[in-house]
Amino acid sequence: MTPAILAFVGKPGSGKTTLLEKLIPELNRRDLTIGTIKHHVHQFEMDREGKDTWRHKKCGAHTVILSSTSGLGIISDVNHDHTAEELLDRYFPGIDLVIAEGYKRSSLPKIEIFRKNISSTPLDNRDNTWLAMISDDNLETDLPRFGLDDITALADFIIENLLKKKSPSRVTLIADGITIPLNNFLERFLRQAVTGMITSLKGCSKAKEITLTVNQKKDHERN
Amino acid sequence: MTPAILAFVGKPGSGKTTLLEKLIPELNRRDLTIGTIKHHVHQFEMDREGKDTWRHKKCGAHTVILSSTSGLGIISDVNHDHTAEELLDRYFPGIDLVIAEGYKRSSLPKIEIFRKNISSTPLDNRDNTWLAMISDDNLETDLPRFGLDDITALADFIIENLLKKKSPSRVTLIADGITIPLNNFLERFLRQAVTGMITSLKGCSKAKEITLTVNQKKDHERN
Repeated sequence: MTPAILAFVGKPGSGKTTLLEKLIPELNRRDLTIGTIKHHVHQFEMDREGKDTWRHKKCGAHTVILSSTSGLGIISDVNHDHTAEELLDRYFPGIDLVIAEGYKRSSLPKIEIFRKNISSTPLDNRDNTWLAMISDDNLETDLPRFGLDDITALADFIIENLLKKKSPSRVTLIADGITIPLNNFLERFLRQAVTGMITSLKGCSKAKEITLTVNQKKDHERN
Repeated sequence: MTPAILAFVGKPGSGKTTLLEKLIPELNRRDLTIGTIKHHVHQFEMDREGKDTWRHKKCGAHTVILSSTSGLGIISDVNHDHTAEELLDRYFPGIDLVIAEGYKRSSLPKIEIFRKNISSTPLDNRDNTWLAMISDDNLETDLPRFGLDDITALADFIIENLLKKKSPSRVTLIADGITIPLNNFLERFLRQAVTGMITSLKGCSKAKEITLTVNQKKDHERN
């Protein structure tokens, strides 16, 4: 199940992270599992200098993982700037809602934070992906408006607008990393074909989620 | 294609990370893309205190991602200690060889580093998963033995023993997170069935890798 996603946008210093520090615990209290994505325009170092994983990455490893009983840390090179959608399916299994910071020019549903002492006007590219405004100012808007501390009402709004409407995508087809759109007929056809083929295999008869990968690369195409 | 995997084992202080800092660049020079896994027995903090992603995680996000044009950083809660094999398929696509530090009681192929000023004897659980020894001592062993600076010979050995023998697994079937073993007949059957079904869809005709996921969970089973 792909998680719901919502971007918090606003000018630098408007308090996006501070708001999330109040909102995420409120969503957790409602039994929602939350993921976050922060977009960073420059190179970054996430790991701590001198640690073994930091040394692995520094000397040329493409991907390093630190694995423990309670957590995973992964640092990996990528060959392009990932969209939030690309990250969603792959890295957030079992997550209910992913909150992105930034991505103001994307097509993600958005809530803007506007603080009057940071900027005289909200963002200028507001379009129909804007769901609501959060502000300490009485700005005129047709959108629902929340104060900076209206965390309970904001959580209610997010759940009502993003989590209740979500219909599950039951069949996903990815070809060379690209998700192929499927209409209802194709989705039903592929679901029935796959479940029909593998249902008598040991371990598959009661499976809730089946993933089948066919790799047709030849050995010399590996790199 | 699942990457090859190799664990470097040895007592604490034997110089596993230092050796990898020489070996990884040598494997990179041979056009191999390398991943690493470090197993950590306690809780860890990989991120840097005060950063936005660190704040997201601290306030209760289950999974946080820092995404840029050149890299991804992911920190996630997990509900169990992952085996290296579980991490392989999921997090190392396109990697040729994953090197694990530790995992001395696993069934992974292993190379042990033994330094005489660190310990009087090598590890005591040496079994048939041991491929070679690296040592500054003339220890008696039936295994191939390399000096601490024999990086070129060690890279040759690893490529010969782990990368040339690897046969590609072309079809992967995962049911509720468990990889289902497939014999040659099933592999061929599923490959031909899937490619046959989707080959006429836009974007699929020349796909090298196809992933098809069927999720039969009902809405109330999501959490």
